[in-house]
Amino acid sequence: MSIYFDNAATTELDPRVKDALISHLDVYGNSSSLHKLGRDAKFLLNEARRNVAAFIGADESEIVFTPSASAANNLVLKSFEHIISSDIEHPSVDEIVENKFRPSEVLGAITPDTELVSMMYVNNETGEILPVEELLSERPEGVLVHIDAVQAIGAIDIDVRKLNVDFLSLSLHKIHGLKGVGALYIKKGHHLKTLIAGGGQESGLISGTQDVVGIYASTLALESLPKLGLKAKLIEELNKNEIEFELNSSENSVEKTVNLRLAGVKNDRLLANLDLEEIYISAGSACSAGALKASRVLKNMGLSDVAASESIRISFSKYNTDAEVVEFVKKLKKIISRMRGN
Amino acid sequence: MSIYFDNAATTELDPRVKDALISHLDVYGNSSSLHKLGRDAKFLLNEARRNVAAFIGADESEIVFTPSASAANNLVLKSFEHIISSDIEHPSVDEIVENKFRPSEVLGAITPDTELVSMMYVNNETGEILPVEELLSERPEGVLVHIDAVQAIGAIDIDVRKLNVDFLSLSLHKIHGLKGVGALYIKKGHHLKTLIAGGGQESGLISGTQDVVGIYASTLALESLPKLGLKAKLIEELNKNEIEFELNSSENSVEKTVNLRLAGVKNDRLLANLDLEEIYISAGSACSAGALKASRVLKNMGLSDVAASESIRISFSKYNTDAEVVEFVKKLKKIISRMRGN
Repeated sequence: MSIYFDNAATTELDPRVKDALISHLDVYGNSSSLHKLGRDAKFLLNEARRNVAAFIGADESEIVFTPSASAANNLVLKSFEHIISSDIEHPSVDEIVENKFRPSEVLGAITPDTELVSMMYVNNETGEILPVEELLSERPEGVLVHIDAVQAIGAIDIDVRKLNVDFLSLSLHKIHGLKGVGALYIKKGHHLKTLIAGGGQESGLISGTQDVVGIYASTLALESLPKLGLKAKLIEELNKNEIEFELNSSENSVEKTVNLRLAGVKNDRLLANLDLEEIYISAGSACSAGALKASRVLKNMGLSDVAASESIRISFSKYNTDAEVVEFVKKLKKIISRMRGN
Repeated sequence: MSIYFDNAATTELDPRVKDALISHLDVYGNSSSLHKLGRDAKFLLNEARRNVAAFIGADESEIVFTPSASAANNLVLKSFEHIISSDIEHPSVDEIVENKFRPSEVLGAITPDTELVSMMYVNNETGEILPVEELLSERPEGVLVHIDAVQAIGAIDIDVRKLNVDFLSLSLHKIHGLKGVGALYIKKGHHLKTLIAGGGQESGLISGTQDVVGIYASTLALESLPKLGLKAKLIEELNKNEIEFELNSSENSVEKTVNLRLAGVKNDRLLANLDLEEIYISAGSACSAGALKASRVLKNMGLSDVAASESIRISFSKYNTDAEVVEFVKKLKKIISRMRGN
C-alpha cells in the first residue's frame, strides 16, 4: 500500500476528470475551425472557461487557458518592466523578477515606479498564506497586482471581485486535473503582451491549438477541498510517537501542506528510505530539474543550510486518510531509528 | 455519415494513442519528482522523447517537448535577431519574422547578417513542398536553418542528419496525436533562449510540468502515412462529374492536401452548405481566430482576392477512403448547382 503525500507537486486524477476525458476523446475538432466539429470543440472550451470563471467569481471573457501556471505567470510578468515580488515565489516568478522582498515587506517596498506586484497566495513549500489580502486592499492606486494562486486554489475560497485582483494564475494538475492545463484570470480592461505569437488563440496571448478535451475535463475538478484534519492528525501522531520535529510552516498555513525539520536527519537519505517503503513525499519543490538542492524558500525564511537539509514537505489531498497518516508516522519512526543507529 | 477532410487543421485520435492514454492515466507523478512516481513519469517522458528522436533520426537529447508547434516555432525564432523566411509561413513564424521572400527566393536573400532562415517543409494551405532541401544544402556556412515540419511529418520521410537541419518543429495533433503536444528538434551544440522561465523543465527552455501521459501516448501515432491515392481520386471524380476547378496546389505537393478554386463559388457559402451535409473542409488555415478572411498564403502565391475567396482546402488522413471522396464530390456537385441556380 503506497502513500502519496506529495500533492503540492502534483495530484492523481479526479475520477470525474478521467471519465470526462475518456468520454470526450471523440471531440477532436480544432476549436478555431468554422465547421460543426470546430464549433463543438469551441463549445466545450467555452464551457471550460465558464467553469473556471464561475469558480473564482470572474467573467468567462476574463479567463485564458495556458499550458501551465508557469506560462500564466510568465505571460503576466513579461508584460511589465517594474515589478516587485516576495522572495519565496515559485521559480516561474522568481526567475523573472529582480526586486524581491520578505512577504511582510512587499507592500512597503512599492515605489512610484512600481507597475506590478506579484505575490503567491500560498507558498508551495511551506503552505504559508501570504498577506495578499492586505496587499490588495492597501496598495497605492495604479499599482497592479498578480496573484499566483496555484497552491491556494481549493484550499482558500477565491473571489476575484472581492479580492480586487488584476491577474491570478491557476494550475489544474495541482487539484486532480490533467497536466498541461493552466489558466490566467485577466481583469476586464487589462492588456498583456503576447507570450506565444501565431494563430491568435486565447485572445492572441498564447497561440497554439488548445487541448480542448483535456482543458474541459480538468475544470471538472474545481471544488473547495474538504477540511480533513490531516495536518492536526500528523502533528498528533508525531508527538504520540515521540518524534522530535520543528514546524517550518507557521500557524498561518493551509492544511494541505506541512513543512517540518527533523533535526539530525538528512532529507535526501530519509526520502530515499521512504521511497523504498512506497511513501512519497518531497524536500521542497519538484520543479527544479530533479536535483535536491537547499531550498531557496526555506533559506529566505531564515533557516540555516543544515536546517533546510533536514526539512521535508508533506502535502495532502482530498484522497488521503487518517490511516495513511498513522502508517506514515510509523514507518517514519522506524526509518529515523535505523538512520540514527547507523 | 459525416466526412472529415480537414486533417491539415487537426485529426482524430489514432486508436493506439487513445488506448495508451487511457491505460496510463494512473501514471500521475510529476516527472521532476525524485521518488518512484516521479521516476515512472520521467521514464515515460524519456520513452516519448526516444520515439520522436527515432522517427526523425535524432538523438533523444536533441528533442524538447512544447505545448504546440507554435510554441516550438516561437522558441526558435525569439532566440535570434536577423531572420528571413518565406512569405507563406504559418502565423507562428510569419508574425515574428520581418523579412519574407517567395520560397524560391529565400536562398538568394541570405545576407552576411542573416543568422537564421525559417522555412516550412510543406505549406498548410496548399500542401506545396518548399525547397528546404536546396536551402539546407546550399546555404552559406554559419547560417542556421529552422524547418517547420508540421505538415510534412508522416507525409515526407525526415532524417535530420541527412537534411543537416539545425531546428525542426513538429505537432502531434496533426498526425492523430493529442492537442497540446508539440516538439522541437535542436541539433546538439545549439542553444536557444528560454521561452517560459521557471522550474527548468525541457532543458530550461519551456518550464511547466509536462503532460507526460498525453505526450507519451501521442508519440505512438508517429508513422509514415500510407499512400492512398486520394488526391488523384479527387481529381478524377471532379473531372468525371464535370466540376470545373483550378488547382492552387502545384505538382510538387504532398498527397494529403489539395487546394483548388471553384470559379464563381464563394467559399464561405460553400463551406456553410457542406457543413449542413456533415462534410467538413476549410478555406485555409484554422489558426486564425475563426474568421474567414482572404488567405495571405494564396494572395502571396499571386491569386487575386476573388480567386482566394473561391478557393477551398481538402486535406486527407489515413482514415479517409475512396468512397468518401466519391460521396464528397457528389454532394459538392449538388451544392454548386444549387448555389449557381440561386
